[in-house]
Amino acid sequence: MNISELIYTDNISNYIDESNSVLIIDKKVYSLFPEFNTFKKTLLFHSSEINKSFYSINKILNFFIENKLSRNSKVYAIGGGTLLDTVGFAASIYKRGINIINVPTTLLSMADASIGGKNAINFNNTKNIIGTFYLPIQVLINLNFLNTLENKHFKSGLLEIVKISLLFSKELFNFININQLKDIRNSKIIIEKIIKEAVHYKTKLVMEDYYDVGRRKLLNYGHTIAHSIELTRKIPHGIAVGYGMLLMQKYAENYYGANPELSITLIKLISKLRIKPFIFELSEIELDLVFQDKKLSNKEIDIVFLKDYEYPIIKRVSINELRNKIKNMS
Amino acid sequence: MNISELIYTDNISNYIDESNSVLIIDKKVYSLFPEFNTFKKTLLFHSSEINKSFYSINKILNFFIENKLSRNSKVYAIGGGTLLDTVGFAASIYKRGINIINVPTTLLSMADASIGGKNAINFNNTKNIIGTFYLPIQVLINLNFLNTLENKHFKSGLLEIVKISLLFSKELFNFININQLKDIRNSKIIIEKIIKEAVHYKTKLVMEDYYDVGRRKLLNYGHTIAHSIELTRKIPHGIAVGYGMLLMQKYAENYYGANPELSITLIKLISKLRIKPFIFELSEIELDLVFQDKKLSNKEIDIVFLKDYEYPIIKRVSINELRNKIKNMS
Repeated sequence: MNISELIYTDNISNYIDESNSVLIIDKKVYSLFPEFNTFKKTLLFHSSEINKSFYSINKILNFFIENKLSRNSKVYAIGGGTLLDTVGFAASIYKRGINIINVPTTLLSMADASIGGKNAINFNNTKNIIGTFYLPIQVLINLNFLNTLENKHFKSGLLEIVKISLLFSKELFNFININQLKDIRNSKIIIEKIIKEAVHYKTKLVMEDYYDVGRRKLLNYGHTIAHSIELTRKIPHGIAVGYGMLLMQKYAENYYGANPELSITLIKLISKLRIKPFIFELSEIELDLVFQDKKLSNKEIDIVFLKDYEYPIIKRVSINELRNKIKNMS
Repeated sequence: MNISELIYTDNISNYIDESNSVLIIDKKVYSLFPEFNTFKKTLLFHSSEINKSFYSINKILNFFIENKLSRNSKVYAIGGGTLLDTVGFAASIYKRGINIINVPTTLLSMADASIGGKNAINFNNTKNIIGTFYLPIQVLINLNFLNTLENKHFKSGLLEIVKISLLFSKELFNFININQLKDIRNSKIIIEKIIKEAVHYKTKLVMEDYYDVGRRKLLNYGHTIAHSIELTRKIPHGIAVGYGMLLMQKYAENYYGANPELSITLIKLISKLRIKPFIFELSEIELDLVFQDKKLSNKEIDIVFLKDYEYPIIKRVSINELRNKIKNMS
């Protein structure tokens, strides 16, 4: 498989070929960046977890049909991960796949959702259960979008990048760690370097295991509990991933001899980013959400932790045992 | 891409691994073949054009979720093209793709729909507009299913095979042509040879151009008008394709010097199969259906015709011109 073309630019509009194409734009981005107001075939999308649904897919597919898009047409998806996930799925099933160009507008989506071709919507109360593997032909990155990003969402994106760095590059981790948040936010040079490195490592892994049957599972580091505490504690995804990595490292220290420096560094970083300290004690509701269904408790899942920097382990463990150990860890 | 494993067997049940799998079966097949009654996790599907819809996809996805299918689970799809198309699409989007095993029960689906990984549903009054490319891991063919197939559906399947033979193997075409319909129906040796050859040529083409951007378009031979006259004249798909090939050959004789033996042979074959002779005159309604939208009439489409046996041509023509020429051909 070919990886998408990646372009860094200060002017997205210059790259938009309006003939034979449509734009689907996040409502908030549309109001903040007037450069997109001149395009005619535009659908505004209200990005929210509830809109990652078949209802939205229906609306988007009808929009494609109204505009008589062919397989050679182009769809520009302009927004964060929620939008890219939803539009990407719609594009992948319209006429068995129409060209899509991702324009990520959040740090999280620049470094993660826009890369690698995994899309998804929610269904039957299950997050991301419906989707396809489908690569955009192009990813257009404009760092100026980050100027209007809320601080908590910036931190969220940064922690997904921290995840990548812990997995693959202690050097990148140290670079993030030595810089203050305000310097990362204010220096285009610093943030560009960070994003480029993160994209590099993610892309490399995706090319190794596009269909997520092997090493790509490493990207689930921190995610075992993230989806559930994201819901219960109402925190952005990346922050939940930060907490998730910390929990996994504590677990791995206790049971698999992981280097304790990792959890110490993570706690320090979380504090430096002025994120609330993680409360290790998961409620029964949270544990139920993580392990979904008690009937499954005799089954096994893959977890990811680090033995040391750049030394990740994928381990198959019994759900029952993991649940009990996590419960008693606080 | 890897092509699906193909197995010919007289006993499908032997190949069904019930642990970690579900069956989706055509209602009629289920009542005719009691061998499937013993399986527990079974969903019955009423095969009809109207059920190639998101409504069915919703039902199938819920069935997958109820049975807690993982990406490693297997779905056995047992039925004709309509069922395989619908179940195949659902399987391709559940958790970004779950294993599917096709068990085609009609001649048309044995030689065509079960092979090559194209699936689709209808949406917004447009046939097959939503779908994916997604290969089954296995195709299980039991020729005994054909014993209960209605004659008109047998003929329909045979004409899709005739299409393949005209495109790629005059030898196969002659073999079909020298046998009487009743001999083909009654001799397992004859029909097995015919199906195997057809599958061989289709598979070869699919491997050359899986994503249907080049030579795979040859399989559209006879299909330009097929979908519309299928609807208006209420005839099975393959018979419409037979008429469609005939119309294309007449057109190609008139305008591109095609060998007239082809249309003569097709007329003879259609008559030998006791199919009503084709009425060349297409109604305005049919022409509108073929060319969909008058606003598109300044656009171009790809048509396929034969210059001679095994000598297919893909030609880009103006919709307007084609419409007028077809209209005045009767």
